[in-house]
Parts: sequence; structure tokens; C-alpha cells
Amino acid sequence: MSRLDINIRRLKAQRACLNLAAETIGGLAGPVFELGLGNGRTYDHLREILPARGIFVFEREVAAHPDCIPDEAHLFRGDFHDSLPRAAERFAGQVALVHADFGSANPERDARLAAFIAEFLPRVLRAGGVVAADRDVGFAASEALDLPDSVAPGVYFLYRRTA
Amino acid sequence: MSRLDINIRRLKAQRACLNLAAETIGGLAGPVFELGLGNGRTYDHLREILPARGIFVFEREVAAHPDCIPDEAHLFRGDFHDSLPRAAERFAGQVALVHADFGSANPERDARLAAFIAEFLPRVLRAGGVVAADRDVGFAASEALDLPDSVAPGVYFLYRRTA
Repeated sequence: MSRLDINIRRLKAQRACLNLAAETIGGLAGPVFELGLGNGRTYDHLREILPARGIFVFEREVAAHPDCIPDEAHLFRGDFHDSLPRAAERFAGQVALVHADFGSANPERDARLAAFIAEFLPRVLRAGGVVAADRDVGFAASEALDLPDSVAPGVYFLYRRTA
Repeated sequence: MSRLDINIRRLKAQRACLNLAAETIGGLAGPVFELGLGNGRTYDHLREILPARGIFVFEREVAAHPDCIPDEAHLFRGDFHDSLPRAAERFAGQVALVHADFGSANPERDARLAAFIAEFLPRVLRAGGVVAADRDVGFAASEALDLPDSVAPGVYFLYRRTA
């Protein structure tokens, strides 16, 4: 597989998982958290498939397409280590969906960040709330959801808070 | 369509067109030109599908994955306006395939660059040589090739030098 193949596989898995996650949370009330804005592609997708939800974005340095930047009220600027604890206080047990796309070429860094996010998830997600992530963020009181058929195991991850 | 959808469509069109272009040039001798390296995804794909070809890359500022950077002998650094005329002298009428991925959010800039590249193509491509591009670079003595079935018109472009 070339890097082009890998990128296509990754983006298709991302889209399929976000679409399934949006369907899974269905009638469950609550906002969406987007951890990492990047160029704003998945933020744009989330607001398209979940138009009625508040979407809060966490990003250290905003550098997205100008039309894919949320207003300041929906933006947590700064490092996850500062912004996630702040958000956890304000949104404890309220969030319906978290999307966390934070993987890098550095597996140690990714594992540390996955562990940090896994601590954060049960604090903000409501029961039945879902996380979609590009790294394994399995957390306490969660169950892995079946991936869409098109998604190979390990390319993307879906968990639901059980209780 | 969200920006995620558009990006997936674009990358799939890119891959389908490169694969078809590689098949189309078949036994036609000659190197490959990659106009723009970016993060090296399509360069990586080209060297995977055309392992026996010399691939020359044109890039102003090299910022690709470290394993997707060609050696200096296959790298034309600098602005296209300087590097393409130099390459046209050295490779006049020898090139089998040009891939040009240069589109931006600025249609006027893209149209100017497409016109500049369209001037360059008949100088370097051999008869039967193919160009795949993300903008319309149709040039003198060229014919449009049928796109792969999966590619919507206008997403990617394929031309062959006729004579």
C-alpha cells in the first residue's frame, strides 16, 4: 500500500465511523466534541451530519480553512492537557459524541495522549455516548462497538460508554 | 458534500487516474515528472506502480515524509517558472508521464499556472505520453483520455500527446 492508499483508507474509515457514530447516538441529547481541528475537514463533516448539535472544537493552533473555524464560543484553544480538564468541568456527563483524531508518527506520544483522553472520556460522555478515534482510547465502563464493514480493525476505533 | 467527502473523492480520483495513466503508457519508454511533492503521497504511489521508471520531482520547498523524498539527482528545487524550463531542455520529448497536482483555493492563480504547464507539456512529453492533473492543462496536440468510470468529470484530468 502506498501512502496514497493508506490515506484514502484512513479517510474512508473516518467518514464511515463518524456516520455510524452519528446514527448510534440518535436521540441521545448532548453536544459533540471534536478533539483536533486540523484543516477542518471532519469538523465540516460533523456539522453536516449533526446539524442540530453544538460542536465544540479543541485545538492548540487554529489553522483550518476559514469557513471551517467555529466561533469563539465553540472553541477551546490551547493544549489538550489544559483544555480537556476545563471542558470536563463544564460538560461533565453531558457529551453525546467525541471525535478524537490525534495520531502522529510517534507511537509513544500517541499512547500517552490516548491514555490521557481515555481518562477524560468517562467524565464527559453521558451513558450511551460514543467516541470515534484514530487511536485506541478504550476507557473504563466502555464497550467496543462493531466497526462498519468497510473498516479494517485498527484503522479506526469506536467505543460507547455503557453506564 | 463535506470537505471530508470532497477530499476522499479527490484522492480516489487521483489514484484511479494515476493507475490508468500508468497502464496507458505501458511499454512507452521515458521518465515520470511529478510536479509538486507536497507530503509525498502521490510520489510514493507513483514509485509503487511504476517501479522501473526514473521519477523526477519538482518542488519549491521540500516538506514531505522523510521516506518520500527523492535523492537530489531526481529533485528539481525551486519555482516551476525556473525549474520547468530547465527540465524541458534536458528532457525534451522524452517524458512518458507527467503528474501535476497544483490546484489551490485561488482560481486565477490556478488558471495562470495551468496555462504555463500547458506550454511546457508538449515540449517534454513524447508522442503517446500522458499527463494527469487536478486542473485542466489541455495543450496543443493533445487529446483528452476517457476518465476511469469512478471519476466525475472535472475532478481530475487526463490528456495524451497525440504526435
